[in-house]
Amino acid sequence: MKFTAREIAALLGGKIKGSPEAAVTKIGKIEEAVAGDLSFIANPKYEHYLKNTGASVVIVAEALLTHEAPETATLIAVADPYSAFAKLLEVYQQMQAAGKKKGVEQPAFVAANAQVHPSAYIGAFSYIAEGAEVAEGASIYPGCYVGAGAKIGKDTTLFAGVRVYHGCEIGEGCTLHAGVVIGSDGFGFAPQPDGSFRKVPQTGNVVIGNDVEIGANTTLDRATIGATHIHDGVKLDNLVQIAHNVEIGRATVIAAQTGISGSTKIGSGCMFGGQVGVVGHIHIADNTRINAQSGVAKSVPDAGTVWNGTPAFEYRNSMKSAAVYRNLPEMQRQIQQLEQKVALLMQAFEQQQPGK
Amino acid sequence: MKFTAREIAALLGGKIKGSPEAAVTKIGKIEEAVAGDLSFIANPKYEHYLKNTGASVVIVAEALLTHEAPETATLIAVADPYSAFAKLLEVYQQMQAAGKKKGVEQPAFVAANAQVHPSAYIGAFSYIAEGAEVAEGASIYPGCYVGAGAKIGKDTTLFAGVRVYHGCEIGEGCTLHAGVVIGSDGFGFAPQPDGSFRKVPQTGNVVIGNDVEIGANTTLDRATIGATHIHDGVKLDNLVQIAHNVEIGRATVIAAQTGISGSTKIGSGCMFGGQVGVVGHIHIADNTRINAQSGVAKSVPDAGTVWNGTPAFEYRNSMKSAAVYRNLPEMQRQIQQLEQKVALLMQAFEQQQPGK
Amino acid sequence: MKFTAREIAALLGGKIKGSPEAAVTKIGKIEEAVAGDLSFIANPKYEHYLKNTGASVVIVAEALLTHEAPETATLIAVADPYSAFAKLLEVYQQMQAAGKKKGVEQPAFVAANAQVHPSAYIGAFSYIAEGAEVAEGASIYPGCYVGAGAKIGKDTTLFAGVRVYHGCEIGEGCTLHAGVVIGSDGFGFAPQPDGSFRKVPQTGNVVIGNDVEIGANTTLDRATIGATHIHDGVKLDNLVQIAHNVEIGRATVIAAQTGISGSTKIGSGCMFGGQVGVVGHIHIADNTRINAQSGVAKSVPDAGTVWNGTPAFEYRNSMKSAAVYRNLPEMQRQIQQLEQKVALLMQAFEQQQPGK
Repeated sequence: MKFTAREIAALLGGKIKGSPEAAVTKIGKIEEAVAGDLSFIANPKYEHYLKNTGASVVIVAEALLTHEAPETATLIAVADPYSAFAKLLEVYQQMQAAGKKKGVEQPAFVAANAQVHPSAYIGAFSYIAEGAEVAEGASIYPGCYVGAGAKIGKDTTLFAGVRVYHGCEIGEGCTLHAGVVIGSDGFGFAPQPDGSFRKVPQTGNVVIGNDVEIGANTTLDRATIGATHIHDGVKLDNLVQIAHNVEIGRATVIAAQTGISGSTKIGSGCMFGGQVGVVGHIHIADNTRINAQSGVAKSVPDAGTVWNGTPAFEYRNSMKSAAVYRNLPEMQRQIQQLEQKVALLMQAFEQQQPGK
Repeated sequence: MKFTAREIAALLGGKIKGSPEAAVTKIGKIEEAVAGDLSFIANPKYEHYLKNTGASVVIVAEALLTHEAPETATLIAVADPYSAFAKLLEVYQQMQAAGKKKGVEQPAFVAANAQVHPSAYIGAFSYIAEGAEVAEGASIYPGCYVGAGAKIGKDTTLFAGVRVYHGCEIGEGCTLHAGVVIGSDGFGFAPQPDGSFRKVPQTGNVVIGNDVEIGANTTLDRATIGATHIHDGVKLDNLVQIAHNVEIGRATVIAAQTGISGSTKIGSGCMFGGQVGVVGHIHIADNTRINAQSGVAKSVPDAGTVWNGTPAFEYRNSMKSAAVYRNLPEMQRQIQQLEQKVALLMQAFEQQQPGK
Repeated sequence: MKFTAREIAALLGGKIKGSPEAAVTKIGKIEEAVAGDLSFIANPKYEHYLKNTGASVVIVAEALLTHEAPETATLIAVADPYSAFAKLLEVYQQMQAAGKKKGVEQPAFVAANAQVHPSAYIGAFSYIAEGAEVAEGASIYPGCYVGAGAKIGKDTTLFAGVRVYHGCEIGEGCTLHAGVVIGSDGFGFAPQPDGSFRKVPQTGNVVIGNDVEIGANTTLDRATIGATHIHDGVKLDNLVQIAHNVEIGRATVIAAQTGISGSTKIGSGCMFGGQVGVVGHIHIADNTRINAQSGVAKSVPDAGTVWNGTPAFEYRNSMKSAAVYRNLPEMQRQIQQLEQKVALLMQAFEQQQPGK
């Protein structure tokens, strides 16, 4: 997408200083922007960057029109640069939405009995298997796989290379980033007398609600029986692992590389940092916060608590233990000195006893 | 797959109560099942769920035929519901196997000198490179890549989007889930005098035995020289990292997000929890258990031991240290009090000495 | 690639003992090599493996020609086996480079206004979107996605299934392994009064320098505004997570499964172990070393320091704390004994005071 200063000024009702034909294709920070970037200054502490900015177009407050700026920078003066910028971001999103592709791009594979809405986009090299459904306005980028009987909801986007196994269901307005895997087999194996393992059939599926976002290369396993449930508004970052039969409540947010083990149920409104591990078969109450890299080994019964460490315990106490941990060598010295002093005291005391 | 109560009852030799035409397409837990689900009650403590179940067909013990159940639920009474369910799962697996596709689905890319058995399935958009071999009964789902000279064994399944680099070998009866990467370059770089790094050629491959299962988006690097070896019956969960020249012994099981560093050799029958890290160039004895999130920094010489923590040490001692860790702030207070008391005692003792 | 002993001896100026027609296709360690492998012995401590090696061709020092070796092994004697082997590896790389494919392999998707250099390779099932550029000598393996306006530099290789989102830029001589995702949305959501989250548009891109290697299934998010920057010579292992607006300095090396949170800036020449976590919005100085599994919670201001643990602190002190940690139960016993002794002392002292 390419815009001229003239178009942007018209949209924002702004005043141009410089070339109205200056064109931009993306947004950059004022201090890092290069030719072709649109930038903005809303905070006075960034004003000094204007003098040397590489941006081609800069949205500024009217007061900044008199400041020194490179000849390469066209300025657009508005009453409130921050609001103007927010408006631009909205327009950016609307244009992205308006620029969505429609129809089946060849070569793609759409099974005869799959149902693909005419307004949906199926990218080249994507595979829509038998009985799968792709609803109105959905975007399936190139190289995706939608297994037999799987359902992709209205206005949901699967970026390139997403794999949805058979029978899984994804709601409306979801975004799945490249490389996401939905519905791989849960990790279930029954030990046999000879030391080998026999696979436990994973007969369930994954059911994902609406407005869910799932980061690149994140994996969600299908349930052994029933469903792995991701409720409305959940946000999962990249490289997250969700095991079979897990349930994640509404609007819970989980950062990158965290793993949730099988059958664990997580409440709504929780926030987990990155690289957290949660054992299987426990319950985490609503609005629980788990600090990054923590290992949660037992259920969290009360809503709204904060946890840290491996094994995790209450955050503030955990931080106190961590602080003392750094002084453990000193503590050990203190104990040795105490032992010496007490030994001396006991020896001295015994020597002065009558009868000694 | 769709079954009626009549078909299921015939298979199990069961007695129908309700509509023999009730149809099911998947399996659900009695407490979560919805219309179209088959469920079962084998444990008396779940009997109370029968009254309100959403399942369309429920396998029950004969004694339960007299219990209250929704009109929407057709009951099938059998002598032993658990055995009946296990039998159904077996049939489910057999039918899945029977439903396997065969032949090359167009468009696919099969190099002229690649060898694909006529009974194998090559999904659309899959790429079988020069000299690669795909054996009898193997299933290569859509969007896979099998590099030059790579070998895929009999009855092995590569789900959608698996990438096998050139020269790697996968045995019989294996299952590789979506997004698995086999044979990417090991992480080997030689530091140069100018601070940069020069790539060490990774000339080896990955050799995987029989009955191995590998979870979604897991990565296994090729050896620098020789092979990265995964022996028969190994089970790797999702997002696991196996570095170059690693060897993993028979029937070892490794949970999600664990990473094994280069040239480490792991015995057979081991069980590793999730998010474990193991340093390079060490040996882990047979039947070792490593607790989740542990960091193993040295070899484990004796078979059958259990390890925990970072750096990991013997499990029970580690749990004791972890318990004391939570009380570190209290311990620090105790030491301070002891120091005060001992100082007072020493002062008092000195004051009462003759000559003072 | 297949070579005979005769060809190898000619290349190295070596002397053959055995069949000049013995053929090899890959390289194996002397102790593990099988038929068809080329091996070498440069270190005297490996000489005893010669007697039973399975290798078809072995490069040895002249003195070893008189040692016992299997009939299946053809020996090639050279003055310096290690240098000869290094030369062979170089030839191996040159031949791999010479064997690179060129042109667009059908079926591929190349948008009408995409620019693909005639010397570049576009594998089947790869997708080059509108306005994308693929430079001279670049190799795009099958099943890749290069989004709108993205740029792939000269001699850069994208192995199978790499996804580069729109507008991202990759420099020259880079290697991206299978399943890498470049430019997925940063994890940015603004909390709303009703407890839900609203997506913050991620308008930036990812800019990658020259000679960068990125491991399988690693993910790099695009910037919210501006760019996520990976500078020249950076090496990232498998399953690494790089969040939005992160900057990684020249020749920094990061091992598998490490995660860097948003807006953190990492200097040049750093080395991070595997499974490290780094919080957002901090600076890590040049040449910093972070031990595996550490959690870095604050900026590292001084260059050349070493860190360990969660939260990480200076390496040597951290190892001392870790050592004491193992003795915490013993330390607790010592404190209890001290308390008993001090209590006894105080009691005894009080009893002997005048007036008692």
